[in-house]
Amino acid sequence: MEEVPGTLGTSASFALRMGQIIFASSSLLFMCMHIQFYSYTSFCYLVTVVSLIIPWSLILGTADLYSMFVERPSRQPGIFVVIIIGDMFLSFLSLAAAASTASVTDVLLMLGTEQPFCPPRVCSRYQLSAAMAFLSWFFLLASSLFNLWFLPTLL
Amino acid sequence: MEEVPGTLGTSASFALRMGQIIFASSSLLFMCMHIQFYSYTSFCYLVTVVSLIIPWSLILGTADLYSMFVERPSRQPGIFVVIIIGDMFLSFLSLAAAASTASVTDVLLMLGTEQPFCPPRVCSRYQLSAAMAFLSWFFLLASSLFNLWFLPTLL
Repeated sequence: MEEVPGTLGTSASFALRMGQIIFASSSLLFMCMHIQFYSYTSFCYLVTVVSLIIPWSLILGTADLYSMFVERPSRQPGIFVVIIIGDMFLSFLSLAAAASTASVTDVLLMLGTEQPFCPPRVCSRYQLSAAMAFLSWFFLLASSLFNLWFLPTLL
Repeated sequence: MEEVPGTLGTSASFALRMGQIIFASSSLLFMCMHIQFYSYTSFCYLVTVVSLIIPWSLILGTADLYSMFVERPSRQPGIFVVIIIGDMFLSFLSLAAAASTASVTDVLLMLGTEQPFCPPRVCSRYQLSAAMAFLSWFFLLASSLFNLWFLPTLL
């Protein structure tokens, strides 16, 4: 069976998982460190989504490492279907979270006649958090599409 | 070559295109009719995205109709790749637009100490518009995935 880079158990897949973990963690840190993020629904949603992405990518990254160095597991289509659906679901959630966080930050900067609703220092951290969630969307989508492309050869 | 329902030229694909046109048009109408939508970036973004979706789905729906009733065109992989990429791109844009519109409406309802930034009648129309954009995302994604599933049999 020919190897497709980016599918479960390859080094490219491990790199994608690492990217997901790094960007989701930095999004969580930018949002949570010394900031009251729970006053707006979108920010709570972003925190929830990246808290789901981190363990998911950690588990699959560990599976990639195990598969690269210890032993190659049998490739069952059922496992691939679960991974593709999970990746795609999380990628949509993180795209929606990034878009809503970015637009809410934009509105908060624009509104507020006397003084803005969020100080510029805090708002820039919201924007950074949205950008990191956007990057983790990109990596999740890449994982999902590589596995989806490989799936028909297994069936 | 076996027929996959939902791929270009089938009646299921035509139904999906009709759904995309109907939901994108209703999203545009809810956002534009007698409302100043251009005061917030997210609302302008939503209008731009659904204005892209409508002609795209109209052209591909016409191609489906032609293929069903007049003559079956040759199925070239290149055309499928263009359609898959276009559908996926538009589906991501519309998901982001729906999420940002919904969250901005939520913030506008919440903020505003003396009187809300948007009257409840107007805000409910923003929410309806976001919901319609969300539904058109779902239909675009379905079109894209059906065609992507069919692509490897053409190569």
